[in-house]
Amino acid sequence: MPNRLLDALVGDAELAALFSDEAEISGILAFEKALAQAEADSGVISDAAASAIAAACDGFKPDYAALETGIARDGVVVPELVRQLREAVGSGHGKSVHFGATSQDAIDTSLVLRLAKAMTIIEDRLAALGRSLQDLTSRFGSLSRMGHTRMQQALPITVAAKIGNWAEPLQRQLRALEGMRRNLLVIQLGGAVGMREAFGDKADAVARRLAGHLDLGFATPWHTQRDLLVDFASVLSLITGATGKIGADVALLSQNEVEAITLAGGGGSSAMPHKSNPVKAEVLVTLARFNAGQVGTLHQALVHEYERSGSAWTLEWMVLPQMVIATGAALRLANELVGQITFDARA
Amino acid sequence: MPNRLLDALVGDAELAALFSDEAEISGILAFEKALAQAEADSGVISDAAASAIAAACDGFKPDYAALETGIARDGVVVPELVRQLREAVGSGHGKSVHFGATSQDAIDTSLVLRLAKAMTIIEDRLAALGRSLQDLTSRFGSLSRMGHTRMQQALPITVAAKIGNWAEPLQRQLRALEGMRRNLLVIQLGGAVGMREAFGDKADAVARRLAGHLDLGFATPWHTQRDLLVDFASVLSLITGATGKIGADVALLSQNEVEAITLAGGGGSSAMPHKSNPVKAEVLVTLARFNAGQVGTLHQALVHEYERSGSAWTLEWMVLPQMVIATGAALRLANELVGQITFDARA
Amino acid sequence: MPNRLLDALVGDAELAALFSDEAEISGILAFEKALAQAEADSGVISDAAASAIAAACDGFKPDYAALETGIARDGVVVPELVRQLREAVGSGHGKSVHFGATSQDAIDTSLVLRLAKAMTIIEDRLAALGRSLQDLTSRFGSLSRMGHTRMQQALPITVAAKIGNWAEPLQRQLRALEGMRRNLLVIQLGGAVGMREAFGDKADAVARRLAGHLDLGFATPWHTQRDLLVDFASVLSLITGATGKIGADVALLSQNEVEAITLAGGGGSSAMPHKSNPVKAEVLVTLARFNAGQVGTLHQALVHEYERSGSAWTLEWMVLPQMVIATGAALRLANELVGQITFDARA
Amino acid sequence: MPNRLLDALVGDAELAALFSDEAEISGILAFEKALAQAEADSGVISDAAASAIAAACDGFKPDYAALETGIARDGVVVPELVRQLREAVGSGHGKSVHFGATSQDAIDTSLVLRLAKAMTIIEDRLAALGRSLQDLTSRFGSLSRMGHTRMQQALPITVAAKIGNWAEPLQRQLRALEGMRRNLLVIQLGGAVGMREAFGDKADAVARRLAGHLDLGFATPWHTQRDLLVDFASVLSLITGATGKIGADVALLSQNEVEAITLAGGGGSSAMPHKSNPVKAEVLVTLARFNAGQVGTLHQALVHEYERSGSAWTLEWMVLPQMVIATGAALRLANELVGQITFDARA
Repeated sequence: MPNRLLDALVGDAELAALFSDEAEISGILAFEKALAQAEADSGVISDAAASAIAAACDGFKPDYAALETGIARDGVVVPELVRQLREAVGSGHGKSVHFGATSQDAIDTSLVLRLAKAMTIIEDRLAALGRSLQDLTSRFGSLSRMGHTRMQQALPITVAAKIGNWAEPLQRQLRALEGMRRNLLVIQLGGAVGMREAFGDKADAVARRLAGHLDLGFATPWHTQRDLLVDFASVLSLITGATGKIGADVALLSQNEVEAITLAGGGGSSAMPHKSNPVKAEVLVTLARFNAGQVGTLHQALVHEYERSGSAWTLEWMVLPQMVIATGAALRLANELVGQITFDARA
Repeated sequence: MPNRLLDALVGDAELAALFSDEAEISGILAFEKALAQAEADSGVISDAAASAIAAACDGFKPDYAALETGIARDGVVVPELVRQLREAVGSGHGKSVHFGATSQDAIDTSLVLRLAKAMTIIEDRLAALGRSLQDLTSRFGSLSRMGHTRMQQALPITVAAKIGNWAEPLQRQLRALEGMRRNLLVIQLGGAVGMREAFGDKADAVARRLAGHLDLGFATPWHTQRDLLVDFASVLSLITGATGKIGADVALLSQNEVEAITLAGGGGSSAMPHKSNPVKAEVLVTLARFNAGQVGTLHQALVHEYERSGSAWTLEWMVLPQMVIATGAALRLANELVGQITFDARA
Repeated sequence: MPNRLLDALVGDAELAALFSDEAEISGILAFEKALAQAEADSGVISDAAASAIAAACDGFKPDYAALETGIARDGVVVPELVRQLREAVGSGHGKSVHFGATSQDAIDTSLVLRLAKAMTIIEDRLAALGRSLQDLTSRFGSLSRMGHTRMQQALPITVAAKIGNWAEPLQRQLRALEGMRRNLLVIQLGGAVGMREAFGDKADAVARRLAGHLDLGFATPWHTQRDLLVDFASVLSLITGATGKIGADVALLSQNEVEAITLAGGGGSSAMPHKSNPVKAEVLVTLARFNAGQVGTLHQALVHEYERSGSAWTLEWMVLPQMVIATGAALRLANELVGQITFDARA
Repeated sequence: MPNRLLDALVGDAELAALFSDEAEISGILAFEKALAQAEADSGVISDAAASAIAAACDGFKPDYAALETGIARDGVVVPELVRQLREAVGSGHGKSVHFGATSQDAIDTSLVLRLAKAMTIIEDRLAALGRSLQDLTSRFGSLSRMGHTRMQQALPITVAAKIGNWAEPLQRQLRALEGMRRNLLVIQLGGAVGMREAFGDKADAVARRLAGHLDLGFATPWHTQRDLLVDFASVLSLITGATGKIGADVALLSQNEVEAITLAGGGGSSAMPHKSNPVKAEVLVTLARFNAGQVGTLHQALVHEYERSGSAWTLEWMVLPQMVIATGAALRLANELVGQITFDARA
């Protein structure tokens, strides 16, 4: 369902690219290559095998049609991808591909590699939005506006205080993201049931080297421990909640009857050419409510049965990427919106 | 974010096609053409204008890049599309395009036109699944299996009764869908604030003719009345809840330790070649939990501010298509899964 | 957690009473008495047993402390209640108590008996709110106000049209409730695994007589078929969505800067004595968002494992009563709020 | 709606007590007393006033009926409570009661005072559950069981690894709670619109002294900044997600057909005396799904309008206490359940 139109409004091309088929497969190939190298370093497979696997991974062009058939049958893309990769590596070293790993190791690690990039993008946008809000404060912070509580006029509030209420939660979430890098951005390597059973006493060495090659942290297997991912998603929804609050306020402040701010670049109407709609502000509320719904759904995916739940795990795939993209869109829109705000001195 | 891999597992190409950009625009063009014709029939615009508009709509190739810019600015695609269409119609009759309508009229009617098709597909699949379940009953219904309550063995239950519990909710939802056609599959025509103000005393005539041309029902404007859409979504989630229950049962019944059924065509594992995973069964649970989360989110979109909420309306766009597609996928998978079930006589 | 304060704001004493311990037990006793009578009518137990059971049920005072211990142990209150009831009936006929039934039969039927009362209350309040809105239209419908779309001034709209958008979804939900009585207000009688296995060829007769004695409809067992309950909950959330929209509009229309309506009886502030807050309007939005969240959670309870899921069923108990009460509160508050609205002629 | 029966299953008396009317009022009185003292310390009100207020607060018996009327009218209990308190203090110092504060200051601070206690209880139970799991590992960790992925037998897994997957997320959430004390357990003091406007240049001093008297941290006003509360709720749902996974596993492991564990103290059935139902395990799944739904709903409350949203704030009141109680119940039940598990050596 390529929806370029809807994506132009609520999507984010840069973040969506991290969740394309190509990006997912690329992450899996990075995992397989690094795993082979870590295994060769540890004497689990031969150096020749690792070299052959590395050579095959570099520039590997999967047969996507077969991958589609594979995921529809197996629930995961890895068995078919590994089959293709083994074929590319050739009979001599093919069996060394994916040795000791399970599908979830490859898929989760691929996800984490891409979340690392997503976090950087989101952090950068949070910082940029923070600067825009600071700039807005510099320009208008000393002005004041009528404050409103429970939708009624209350007492005046400075623009600085108003913007402070917008900015502070975003600052906290930026720190929260930075704080979770260490735990979240780690390898997944557990083998069939999370015991790293195929590696014997070399399990720790393989895992540590895998982490090193991928520039990720080391971790014990977390196949069924999804709390760190859900916690990350929670921060995403806290971010969109904060930008949603900005959007709600901007829509209210720019009402014709209130005119506490002037908003440049409003949206046009097909029926009423005179209108200037606070489209970005409204969409920020949309994205807040969207992510709020999704994060609740993702919490439902915490309950894994036994050593791996296909049901719970697949639910993550349907929800988490959408949340990342919605968050990216919200930060982009919020930054644009803040740049369109003027608090007139007259008020 | 074209995700053909994930879509191969949890998507549905036939239903997704109804929510492509092209399908949305095509529905809007159908609305504009029918509106012009209804207006000409009622003497609101000239026959020549209606003919010119019809000619322009037929085979119209929009400038999609400009539409993307338009929706990003206006929050809706219609202002830019109408601009392009007016240009195509030419200066003589251009102003008659979209006369008296607002963006929401075009977008909601386009949605309804596509939901009509989606309903037919879903009803057909419900009926097919019903037949498959009936067939399963014919083959195995007289057998019995140990029943389980609260995850413990209880007393025997016939296979017919077990399948009956799967089938009956689906039959009810099929009837529910049929029953909601009359109210849901209706035109949206309200103009700027839902008063059909541009049509004067011809408003009723225009609306009825519009409905006739589009083979939809007549309705008073429902810009902010979203209950019928949300009720439709609720039925979708009741369907995926019912198929989710089938999936949960099949995964339990096909446990190695239970073996109450034999399941053909299980999914393979990259780590354990001996496994045969009940992938479709698991994904049915996933889709149930996904739609359950989405339907709650969609209920959040019931609260419109004033005569149109950009926030609430945009939230629908992000949620409802996904629910339709997930429902289609669930029905397809459930039908395939039921075909793979064997209850052995020995048990 | 008796929260009379919060309940005074968002609760509803009349509906909450239907979900008290006493009401639940009373419904279960009504089931047990009617079941015994139906079984005696059908020759399954003796008339003397049925009389003894009826006598014991009438005015039965359960040992609530023991019931609490019982439900904590068994997950359902019925085993301990039946034990107490058997003791009250005496050794002669004690074993005839609850004959052929399972806990879920008693609990679900008790729920339905109370939902029947809840539906009547809700329908009555919907009708009353409809009359209030009609009255508001009679008084102010011919006036007009500036309409707003996307939070910006659009074109004028009549008050009648504005109120029509409030009233129509409520009318539809009233009809929806009336339409679901036949399917929803039915007995639950399935026995251990939903086969009515203890009654042999008298199963149908017992079930029909049970339905007759309780003035409920007949139905095949629906232990794991929860779609009708969830559909009912969906209507509840559509109702609170509609009253939430009224609340959102009233809060906007009564802004100091807009003054499109005058609102009597606003709430006071501890810091700003001059304020008159649209408390009821705000709470209507709260209740809409609350029920929207709950209905999504309830959809998660559609997935039962095997012949009865303790997990899914218990989730219903935690969610559905709250939704009924929230709906009752919303209808009460909406009716009060509508009575406080004045549209001045001057505007 | 006092539901002692349902509470006996899914409630928690100790945590529920923190959300009783009495506890809420007690917290507000503690705030008012400490505020008066802080204001006297800072020269904002007289020492005599502070003493009179302290004397009135100690053992104050509010007129609860009037409070119910007050909250129904004002949306918050504080205006009426302050009125009563001023009357008790007497005309001399009555006006010094609640000086410079707004309702939200009192209510939020009261909430935080009780969350501090709730956190301690939850942390203690997390630690106790951790010890129970450690004990279980000590007794059975060296055994192994067949592992299962995607509901099918995979390869053996040690009991130690299995329990490790249960324990690790709980350990992380314990640390997360400890880490959020500093930011979450802070005063709320903002006055009408969050500017501490009544205190002039003594605002900072009053706020710091208030924090000191209440043994809470200092913070700038956070009337509309609800991210820390929602983040706390997210941790609650991560906890119940982790105990829900334990429950799901225990229910699966204790299936009659699997018998990987023996479970003491199962629940009885009214229809099948032979059964021993894993009631606590099932309820853990229920509580996970309940909190997952609630946390999504609470994220919806992040979007405040202007300087205070009655709608969003009230939604917190309806959701957060339930989540705390559900979490407490889950930890209690999980601890009991873990104590009932035996892994037999034979398997």
